[in-house]
Amino acid sequence: MPKVAIIGTTIWGVTLGVVLSGNKVEVGLWARTEEEAAELEKAEHHSGALSDVTFPTSLSITSSLEEALAGAKAVILAVPSQSMRQNMKTVAEHLDGSILIVSAAKGMEVGSNKRLSEVIADEINPDFWPNICVLSGPNLSQEILQNLPAVAVVAAEGEAVVRKAQRLLNTPSLCLYTNTDVTGVELGGALKNIIAIGAGITDGLGYGDNAKAALVTRGLTEITALGVALGANPLTFSGLTGLGDLIATCSSPLSRNHYIGVELTKGRPVEEITGSMSGVAEGLNTTVVAHNLASQLGVEMPITEKLYQVLYRGLSPRQAALELMEAQAGHELVGRRWQLFSLFKR
Amino acid sequence: MPKVAIIGTTIWGVTLGVVLSGNKVEVGLWARTEEEAAELEKAEHHSGALSDVTFPTSLSITSSLEEALAGAKAVILAVPSQSMRQNMKTVAEHLDGSILIVSAAKGMEVGSNKRLSEVIADEINPDFWPNICVLSGPNLSQEILQNLPAVAVVAAEGEAVVRKAQRLLNTPSLCLYTNTDVTGVELGGALKNIIAIGAGITDGLGYGDNAKAALVTRGLTEITALGVALGANPLTFSGLTGLGDLIATCSSPLSRNHYIGVELTKGRPVEEITGSMSGVAEGLNTTVVAHNLASQLGVEMPITEKLYQVLYRGLSPRQAALELMEAQAGHELVGRRWQLFSLFKR
Repeated sequence: MPKVAIIGTTIWGVTLGVVLSGNKVEVGLWARTEEEAAELEKAEHHSGALSDVTFPTSLSITSSLEEALAGAKAVILAVPSQSMRQNMKTVAEHLDGSILIVSAAKGMEVGSNKRLSEVIADEINPDFWPNICVLSGPNLSQEILQNLPAVAVVAAEGEAVVRKAQRLLNTPSLCLYTNTDVTGVELGGALKNIIAIGAGITDGLGYGDNAKAALVTRGLTEITALGVALGANPLTFSGLTGLGDLIATCSSPLSRNHYIGVELTKGRPVEEITGSMSGVAEGLNTTVVAHNLASQLGVEMPITEKLYQVLYRGLSPRQAALELMEAQAGHELVGRRWQLFSLFKR
Repeated sequence: MPKVAIIGTTIWGVTLGVVLSGNKVEVGLWARTEEEAAELEKAEHHSGALSDVTFPTSLSITSSLEEALAGAKAVILAVPSQSMRQNMKTVAEHLDGSILIVSAAKGMEVGSNKRLSEVIADEINPDFWPNICVLSGPNLSQEILQNLPAVAVVAAEGEAVVRKAQRLLNTPSLCLYTNTDVTGVELGGALKNIIAIGAGITDGLGYGDNAKAALVTRGLTEITALGVALGANPLTFSGLTGLGDLIATCSSPLSRNHYIGVELTKGRPVEEITGSMSGVAEGLNTTVVAHNLASQLGVEMPITEKLYQVLYRGLSPRQAALELMEAQAGHELVGRRWQLFSLFKR
């Protein structure tokens, strides 16, 4: 039985551990402390999304990084984006040239403005760069834990590596497509969280499905524009890791980013909302990174820009909506630089 | 005050009448009989989506076609797709070279496999062809009647005509973009109803948001492929009338097409479902047309094909789902002819 190591006891890390170990793969899940490992081992301690989940016997949880990684064909990093670099520093010394290094996080690093596969590359031997993969798609953990069907995309720059990753990580309930546009796959998963906050605001303000559909459509356009400026294939954004993930995240009450948008419309400050949440809403940091990159690269991202002002400059969600109405509607397709419509005009 | 005539007392026709006449436009709404006109006039007879709606005084309802059309700058056809030809035959004799002819229906004609603007063209003086427009977008009537914000697209082949239509029909709560890709705008609005039935099936089978997002993503790909084969601009399908309308329709319990999909999973025959519904679910006929066109043009439409078999060949929704799983997941972007994934494998 091939083995996969998972770094990170986030819900997504544990979910991947459960799915993979239920499908002829041995999984070593690394917890940072013995206490955490012991708690996760005991099913009766499971709560929230994990409360009804029994771990397969081929999933072992350990606080020893050596033990988790021993004999692994791949290591999956399912950690919050801002801790990816520190985790890679720790993991790096245990790598060799054969192990696949898979980022399963959906964010970007604040400060460097880098994608997480770039952060990983910074921290490992350049000889291992071809082994870097990313895993992304419309994958709400809670549904996958219920064994509902889902698809995802695994991407790497080389065909051989991506096929190897697909063979290793494909399962009947999480079926994997391949892609070699690492940049596009990674950016879709990260940037969609910005639009999900916007969709939460639209829902929180009670604007309905017409307005939300328009926001999501416009949102996809602007994250595609940023992606293209960063070297991605625009078609990737119309696929599972762009449009697909965007739809799942914006339509589900299970999304943390969507939840933040809803709560913002109640007048709650961001710090108060995040303080009461478990897990990280990656969209908050990703908005900062996208705001910076858009400004550096001259990409128009009107929705992202307004969200940045709501999150970090004290603009009220309703005022942001009103300000988005100022541009006149024009020709829909001109240069793909669609102006913002009077979506929020009342 | 400029005047617009509306043909068709469908919910969408009445909704457009209410929105336009609430915004400095006089509207003449044509009902087929005096009785129907009289019933609509009386607010206390309104039921369903119209129950809380009071008609503006600038909206007049008449069973006289001459009266409805007298002095109108545009005539909007909001009729079921299969009656478009007959309605145009009736309207055609009242047209002159200055009136805009706007199709607001979202379907295709069974038999001819034509778009509705082509049906309109068949029935009018070729000198008037430049005046043909289509109106489409993520526009659930019930939300628009509640004055929630929405956007739509008006399309015509010529820039001057489309700008004229935009100026005439734009309102604060239904803000209009323009497009000159009539084929793409029209096909997006029609074909998305097929995928909406599929989304209803996915929801009815309880497959969750991950699976539905994947279905919608794949669905958009295949309707785009058919659109391109028919001469549309693929970018149009990523816009408000493609992706936008698809998202609104697939996420809303208000959609008739989505409802049919849900009901099909309960084992109810199509005739029984439609027999108990008010209004036409255009997706049923559009599936037939798309099935025929895909076969003629050699376009792969796996979701449409399975739906056709469910609707007209007795295939059970669950069996269709199982059969969609047979193809292996491959590279996501190869030739944009993405194979169907094991979405429904359980």
